[in-house]
Parts: sequence; C-alpha cells; structure tokens
Amino acid sequence: MAVPDPATLDSVAAHAGVSRQTVSNVLRHPDRVAAGTRERVLTAIRETRYRPSLPARQLATRRAHAIAVRAERTQDGISGLVLDAFYHGLAEAGQDNGLRVLLYAQPADEAAEVALIDELVHTGAADAVVLTATSAADERPAHLRESGTTFCAFGRPWGHDDEPHDWVDVDGAVGTGLAVRHLLDRGHRRIAYLGWPEDGADPSTGTDRRRGWLEAVGAASLDGPPVEARSLNQAAAAEVAVAALLARADAPDAIVCASDTLALGAHRAALAAARSARPATVVGFDATPVAAALGLASVAQPIDQAAHLCIDLLTGRFEAPDRPAQGLLVAPVLHLPS
Amino acid sequence: MAVPDPATLDSVAAHAGVSRQTVSNVLRHPDRVAAGTRERVLTAIRETRYRPSLPARQLATRRAHAIAVRAERTQDGISGLVLDAFYHGLAEAGQDNGLRVLLYAQPADEAAEVALIDELVHTGAADAVVLTATSAADERPAHLRESGTTFCAFGRPWGHDDEPHDWVDVDGAVGTGLAVRHLLDRGHRRIAYLGWPEDGADPSTGTDRRRGWLEAVGAASLDGPPVEARSLNQAAAAEVAVAALLARADAPDAIVCASDTLALGAHRAALAAARSARPATVVGFDATPVAAALGLASVAQPIDQAAHLCIDLLTGRFEAPDRPAQGLLVAPVLHLPS
Repeated sequence: MAVPDPATLDSVAAHAGVSRQTVSNVLRHPDRVAAGTRERVLTAIRETRYRPSLPARQLATRRAHAIAVRAERTQDGISGLVLDAFYHGLAEAGQDNGLRVLLYAQPADEAAEVALIDELVHTGAADAVVLTATSAADERPAHLRESGTTFCAFGRPWGHDDEPHDWVDVDGAVGTGLAVRHLLDRGHRRIAYLGWPEDGADPSTGTDRRRGWLEAVGAASLDGPPVEARSLNQAAAAEVAVAALLARADAPDAIVCASDTLALGAHRAALAAARSARPATVVGFDATPVAAALGLASVAQPIDQAAHLCIDLLTGRFEAPDRPAQGLLVAPVLHLPS
Repeated sequence: MAVPDPATLDSVAAHAGVSRQTVSNVLRHPDRVAAGTRERVLTAIRETRYRPSLPARQLATRRAHAIAVRAERTQDGISGLVLDAFYHGLAEAGQDNGLRVLLYAQPADEAAEVALIDELVHTGAADAVVLTATSAADERPAHLRESGTTFCAFGRPWGHDDEPHDWVDVDGAVGTGLAVRHLLDRGHRRIAYLGWPEDGADPSTGTDRRRGWLEAVGAASLDGPPVEARSLNQAAAAEVAVAALLARADAPDAIVCASDTLALGAHRAALAAARSARPATVVGFDATPVAAALGLASVAQPIDQAAHLCIDLLTGRFEAPDRPAQGLLVAPVLHLPS
C-alpha cells in the first residue's frame, strides 16, 4: 500500500470537528464517548488514514495492551466447544478491558512454549499469557515465574500449591457430585464411574472429577462398593470398557462419565447391553451438543465465567503486581436433557 | 510492575555480545538467526527487560504485523473442531510470516462487526482481517472494500462474484461427490441426501454440498429419482427427518449428510429402522471424532491448508495491494472408518 503523509491526533480532531482529547478518548476509552461522536471520530480516523495510535500508546505506556493464549494443535472435537467458548470469553472480556487477545500456535513442547511466551512478552507483543491445559507435570508455571512473566492459568496448580500463581478452574468434583445426586433422586442405586486411565494417580482434572463421584456415592451409603472403569478419551474404547462393566454380576444402573466423549461410548454400550430391558442411565461432562443429541444429562462448565475471571485476575495483577496469588474455583451446573 | 530504565537495542546487543543488527534480526527475522545466537539475544532481551521493539517496529513500518479473526459466540460442538483447527493454522502460518493473530469477540450483528474491524485496522491494532462464516446475504465484504480494509474471506463470495475479493474455500461439492462414489463402489444404489433447510435456494455451503451429491448420483444413472430430506443442523431433528425417509417405499440404502451433526441423527434413525436388517449406510461431513466413534465415513476439510492459504493471500496482498482478487478452492478427502 502507498504510505500517505501521516495524519496526527490534531489533524484527525480537526477533520472530525472535535477536540484532540476526544480523539484520544475514542482510542483509549471508547466507552466514555457518545456513540455519535465516536462514529464521527472513527470516520475521521479512516478518512485521514490515521494509524499509529495503538503502537504509540504501547510505546507511551510501555504495555502491549494484549494477552496471549494458545491455539491447540489438535483436539477432541466433541469437547472442542469448551475451548471455543473460552476463546470467545477471553476476547469479549479483553475488549471490555482494553486488552487484545493474541493466539499463538501450540509449540512442539513445554520448553518451546515457554520460549515463545517469553519472546511475545519481552518483545512487547503481549503483556501476559493465559495458560491452558495445566497438569501436575507442567513445567510452564515455574519457568514463567522465574522469567517474571505475568500469567493466569486456566486450570489449578495440580500438586504444586507451594508455587503459587493466579489461576481459575472449574470445580469438577462439584460437577460429578451433582451428577450423582441427580441419579440418586431418580432412584438409581448402583452408580458407577467411567474415568480416564490416569484418574486416581497424580492430582488432575480426572482425579478431581472422580473424587466428586466417589464422595457423593459414599455419602449416600448405598449397598456394595463403588464400581468404576477407565478408558482413553475415545468413544470406541469407552464402549468396550462399559460393555465389560455391564456384563458383571454387580452391573451398575447408571454411569457418571468424565467427558461427553466417554459418555457417547458408554451410552452405546448401555443400549447394546439393555436389549429389551431399561438401559443404564449415562451422565456426561461438558454439556456438548453430542450429549444433548443423545438425550443425556451432562455437567456444564461455566467457561464464559472462567474466561472473564482470568481477565479479571490479569487486570488486577497489572494494577497490583505484588498482590498475593489468587486461585478461583467456579462451580458447574448439571444440564438435563430437554 | 515497576518500570526500570528502558533498555535499548544497543544495550541488549552489548549484553548479548552481538551486533545491534543481530538483535534487530532476532526481532524482525528470527528465522535468519542461528538458534544459539537467537537464544542468547532473547535471554539478553529478558535480562535487560528490553520491551518496546514491537510497538517501535509498528510505528516505523506503519504496520501492526497482526491480523484479526472472529471468536464465535456459540457454535456446534460437533464441528467445533473445524474452527479450532482453523485458528491453529492461522496462528502457525502467521508466525511463519511475522504476523500475530488477534481474536475479536463476535459482535451482535454484521454492522457492529464491520465497525469493530474498522477500528482494529484504522487504530493500528491489525493490518487485515480473515472473515469467517460468509454467506450470500453477507454485508461485510462490501463494507470492508468500501473502507479500504484488507481482508481475506474463508468462504466464497456466494452469489457476489461481481464484487471480487480474496477468498479461500473448501470445495464441498467435490467432498459429497467423493462420498457418493465411495457408496457406489460399495454397491449402494439408492443414495439419498440429508441437507439443511436452506440448501437449494441461495448459493451457500449447503447448496454446494448438495450439488456434489446430485451431480454424482445423476452421473451414475441409477434407477429412480434422487431422494432427499432437509433438517436443521441438530441431531434430534435429523433423526426425525431420516426416519421419515426410511419409512418410504423407495427408502434409500445410503445417506450422504451435509454435516456430522446430521450424520449422528441419520445414523440413529438408520439403526432404529433397521431392526434385524442391514441399516442404511451414513456418510458425514467434517470427519469429526463423532463420525469416527460411530464408525462412519466422513468428508474431511483440509482446514490447515485453507488457513495457510488465507495467510498466503494476505501477505501477497500486503506486497502487491493492487493485484487482482484471488479465490482458491481446496479439495477435501474422504476419511473412512478404521
């Protein structure tokens, strides 16, 4: 594109017939400017091809006014909705707080990711990062704290409570507890759990969801010990695992699942095992359209709320860099089939 | 955060023991710098807390070195994978070309979206936008051309070929044609189509996918006219529509679907109608884990390729603003169940 003579704040103001401060307000605090005036200033900005406001503001404030978040390389399409909703929530809450949201492509490993984040932050492209998919073995938080990078994790510091940082997470145990109580209310008495292979070992999303089931089932003092199965997060594998569960003498009459992907497999196994009898009731996790399509209850994560809280923690951190680390757990709800 | 004395390109260079040009290269063309040197410079950048490089470069080049793309407000969780893959592809291809990818939250309507894009571009936050979810009634392309905003659409200018702009799209007709030929090869002779309510009216993704089925079925000169049904993109509605189709005297023995969401409903109707006989074969669209879980063939869009081509068109446009508009159609492939 040809580069015309650069417009200035003053030439835009003259063009729009407003003060220089009004132009500045439109760029920095558009919510403080009446819609009509804002529209006139934006038109003047366009017509004068005024451009450098954001970079100039970045230089003046020494802030990028942007945060970075990872675009996942591959993903479970059934629960993909969760991350999409998280992106939208971040973008929306970010816009409300004058923060852009930058996507970076998931690097090959955690070391490469930390290096990329450092580059984004220390070259002024972003002020902070929202870490997703945290785990007990996650090395990113320690590295980011070491390099002085501002971040908020979507996910708890599983097993690393001695290395505090800001985080937001969904209380999975509350979710599976809701699922169990829903099933008890409907008369189920043998409520099994279908989790992931790693559940029950290191602290993780999986152990948390399993714990909610175990505690709720224990509190109900049902007959017989709790029954459970484990499966990779694939519907076909889940179907095999649940078929085995349903072939046992103490077969469950309901199954709480760690994900809707598992629930899809469990539902298919339940239908196949039932023949003419009433199939076991399956409850999923993530309240995706798949669960809705199958007529299954499913635990819904308040993803939009979690995204907004991540932005709240980051903006609070920008204002008070030395305040203690905060962790926020938000409670899910149970979506019933319509 | 406390603001230390600002580091300069020279102080970073001295700290790293390299030339000022090498530091500049790390920031502008990291691919031209050996990994070891790059690492040393990034460490020096971090240790000296050098920050303003990106904003300074933006001011110097009068470019944001960023593109914007919309974060969808809500979405079909079954095909959500497609947009996630698109985001990842944009972020990856963008990084390869020195372009950041900014997310903006989907505004209330197209007018608000165009205003937001204008603001992003004309305040220097982004150089261009990738438009998603284009349609025949879409007013965004005309508005963006009018305001001189650089953009590339992921999706054809349905019915607006007289208003040319850069776009990339997936050839849906090729995809459904592949599905029909796969079914013919497997001996099917009554291959129906399950599309969306709007298919067959205005040019759209739906009419394109339907056309591929119709042409391939017509070319096979089968007995009897082609049979089809329409449904909202919801599995439950699809199940009802396909149940009616399968109750007809000329019931199909195979169904090509416009989406995996429709395929999920079609598959359930086929299983319910079949009882002891062989159920109708269902082919989906988008090759999601749902189709894989159900053992269905499904058309896979080359989303990563499409994202990379969008970035290619935009970088080409930055270099040659007056070159003619380009449209690129990429061909999908058929994923068979394993």
